[in-house]
This record gives sequence, C-alpha cells and structure tokens, in this order.
Amino acid sequence: MNRRRKIYEGKAKVLYEGPEPGTLVQYFKDDATAGNGKKHEIVDGKGVLNNRISEFIFTKLNGLGIPTHFVRRMNMREQLIKEVEIIPIEIVVRNVAAGSLVKRLGLEQGTQLPRSIIEFYYKDDALGDPLVSEEHITAFGWATPPELDDIMSLAIRVNDFLTGLFMGVGIQLVDFKIECGRLYENDMMRIILADEISPDNCRLWDVKTRNKLDKDRFREDLGGMLDAYREVAQRLGILVETDNALTTGPRLVQ
Amino acid sequence: MNRRRKIYEGKAKVLYEGPEPGTLVQYFKDDATAGNGKKHEIVDGKGVLNNRISEFIFTKLNGLGIPTHFVRRMNMREQLIKEVEIIPIEIVVRNVAAGSLVKRLGLEQGTQLPRSIIEFYYKDDALGDPLVSEEHITAFGWATPPELDDIMSLAIRVNDFLTGLFMGVGIQLVDFKIECGRLYENDMMRIILADEISPDNCRLWDVKTRNKLDKDRFREDLGGMLDAYREVAQRLGILVETDNALTTGPRLVQ
Repeated sequence: MNRRRKIYEGKAKVLYEGPEPGTLVQYFKDDATAGNGKKHEIVDGKGVLNNRISEFIFTKLNGLGIPTHFVRRMNMREQLIKEVEIIPIEIVVRNVAAGSLVKRLGLEQGTQLPRSIIEFYYKDDALGDPLVSEEHITAFGWATPPELDDIMSLAIRVNDFLTGLFMGVGIQLVDFKIECGRLYENDMMRIILADEISPDNCRLWDVKTRNKLDKDRFREDLGGMLDAYREVAQRLGILVETDNALTTGPRLVQ
Repeated sequence: MNRRRKIYEGKAKVLYEGPEPGTLVQYFKDDATAGNGKKHEIVDGKGVLNNRISEFIFTKLNGLGIPTHFVRRMNMREQLIKEVEIIPIEIVVRNVAAGSLVKRLGLEQGTQLPRSIIEFYYKDDALGDPLVSEEHITAFGWATPPELDDIMSLAIRVNDFLTGLFMGVGIQLVDFKIECGRLYENDMMRIILADEISPDNCRLWDVKTRNKLDKDRFREDLGGMLDAYREVAQRLGILVETDNALTTGPRLVQ
C-alpha cells in the first residue's frame, strides 16, 4: 500500500511527500522518453540503475562540498532528498559537440569544444524546452544574477568532477544536464544541485571504442540501452545486482 | 561607369571599396527580404529612405559620443563609412514581446517585457541565424568577454536613445537589431556600431493606432511598406523627396 502523497510526476521520476518536513522521496521509473516525450518505452531496470548511479555520484559530490539535495538511498528505486524550490532551467554543460549543438551551430559531432560551454534551457514541455540566455533568465526572474553565478560555478565544479571520474574508467564525458534548486535552511538560501545524474542525462562515450553508453542508444535506436547503463555502473565500481534484482523492488503503482 | 571594387553584397546593402584606405561605401538596395531570403521583393525607394533614416540616426548617435562607422551620406543611396572588422553576431534589443521571442517563450505579442532584453544571433544564413548565448560567443571566440561587455553597453545606449527619439514622435520602439565591428585606430581597438538602423531592422509601432511602421508590413503581407517607412522619416523631420526622387539616384548595376 502506497499512501504517500504524490507531489510531482515527471517523465522518468516521481516525487512523493517525504517522511519529515523538508524532505521528499524521489522514485526512479523505468520510463525512457525522447523527443519531448514523443518516443516512449519502458526499459525494465533502468530506474534501479539510475538510482544507484545517481546515488554514487551525488554522494561523491556531497563529499567534495558541492551541495546537493541527496540525503540517502532508501531502496532499489527510491532516494530521500531535501525539498528545494526548483529553478525552471535545465543547465547543460558541453565539452564535446553533440546533440542539438551540432545542428544549431553546424559543428561536426565529436568536435572538442574550445572550452566547456554552459547552456540554459527553459523547462517548458509545451515550448519544447527552448534555449535561453542569461538575459532571458534574469529579465523574467527565473533566477537572479547572483543565483545564476552560483549555478554556473556549481555546474563547472560538477563538470570538473564528472570529467575526471569518467576519464578514470575509460569514458569521455561529452555533455550533461543538471537542475538546481533553492534550499532555505537556517534563514539562508543556497543554490544546490537537484534532480539526478545518470546516463539518462549525460552523454558518455567509451574512450576506446567510441561506443555510446547513454540515452542516445534509445534516442537513436541503437539498442542495448540497459547493457550500456549497467556497463557505466560496473565501471564506476557500483555493485550491480543480478538482472533479476533489477526488475524487482517496489514498482510504481499508477 | 562604376569601377569600384565590390567588397560584400548582403540582402539589403552592398559594400564597395571606399575613396581612401579604411573607408567603404555602403550602398542601400531596394531589396526587401524575409524568412532568411525565402521571400524577396523589390520595393522602389526603400533604399533611399533607409539611407536617409540611418544617416539621421547615426549622426545623432555620433553626436552623443556613441561610436559608429558612419562618416557622411554621399548621395541618395550611398554612405561613406569606416571599414571595420564585423563581429559575426546580430544583437537584438527587445522592449516589448514580438517576433521570434513570442514563439520561443510563449508570450503574447505586445507584452511589455520586465526589462529590456539583449539577444545574440550568430550571423550564418545556412544555419538560419541561430540564437546563441554569451557562452557560445566567448567559447568560439566570436567576441571576447570584454568586447561583449562593450557591445552590451553600446546596445543599451542605442536603445535608450532610440526609445526616446521614437517616443517623441509617437512611435513605440518594440525591438531592433544592430551589428558591431572592431575599429583599429591609433594602435587601439574599439567596438563601434556598424550596419544600419532603419525600419528594416527595428519594430516600430504607432503609439495611438498600434499600426506597424516597419518591415513586418512586408513579412506579414500587410502592404504599405514604403508609406510606413516614409511616415517614419517624416515624423523624424527628415526632408522627404518626392516619390519621383525616391526612385532616382544611382541604381545598382548587378
């Protein structure tokens, strides 16, 4: 019986009321979507893997002093997180040209960028998450200029850590998307990392084979999505359950 | 006989070698284009009006100490300008929601923006002049961060002046596009205003009637484009030649 109040349901996760004030439970679904939800499949076990990979990364980030919403993993599909006021911006950090940047600026996929580039997209499915600039964000009050500075500093730190982490296991971090939120604590407001970091929102290429180990396997119908996610988890040294275990754990009751 | 060397031909203007080093001749064509050149018409006399309107505005900007490439008008269709190294960015300043911003962010046309917003578009017809942010501009070296600061300061000054100028003659400045260039002079490099300012690259709405007095008349097939441009010139107190005169002056020999 799941009597918890659902706070929000996104494409890949659900947020429930947490066990105490100021907390939420973040539930990882098996839904894979692309093209703003136009393409949609259930990939058994994806949620379990993303929960583990995101737990691993957020734990390391917390340890580095990079503030995140992550408190602890509760079970196969759920994390306890701090409740934040989500900033309605997707922050993308790019190291190598791929995805929409290739189309937009006519670059060749795989081109090393002259430096890491931070992009902002306004979170609005109806508008297709349009690219916006700092000017739009501050003019419309989605974040203040000091908040944007904090967000960019945080994004750069996360990129530094993730680039090194993945490099160490033979994976190139091409780009990734994060979300941030405002945490009110002790009469202070801080910008902290929210959402998740997993192969759902990173582009990860095997350094040797150039194989894609991320959601592009789904977007581009390459197959082997779950194997790729499991490979990422294994390389990071995350204890991977048997296939059986991946499909167990509390499932989402709609 | 026109023996001058053509340096560059754009959709609405041609640049020729100038009479002395460091100068160019900017020739205003009668071509009206929209949708990245998909729509194209000849509007007899448009070039003459834009030459006069742009002369008027650039002269005032020079007088205010806002550096521009404008030296003097030479004849009905030509201006003497300083040669600059054009920065491949279109700078758009918006005061009221219209055009692509309405679509991109789902706003209602005519909505007053919370503050003026500066946007940057990468000048590349093949890519459709994509929206870019400061991050792209500095990462790809299209302009340095200090240059971007200068560009934004200049754009704000131009907006302040134009808003006042048009307000005084019963016209609301909705938005406008400018281009900037680098001028090397006395071992110094400065960012200066280039291109033109005319109803071709401003959105101008009559304050009382809300009539459009700009290129949207052409983009949206409203008709009366030349009358609107002539109205803008007249309100600014620019001596307007008879219709006959508008279609005279040296014509472009292709």
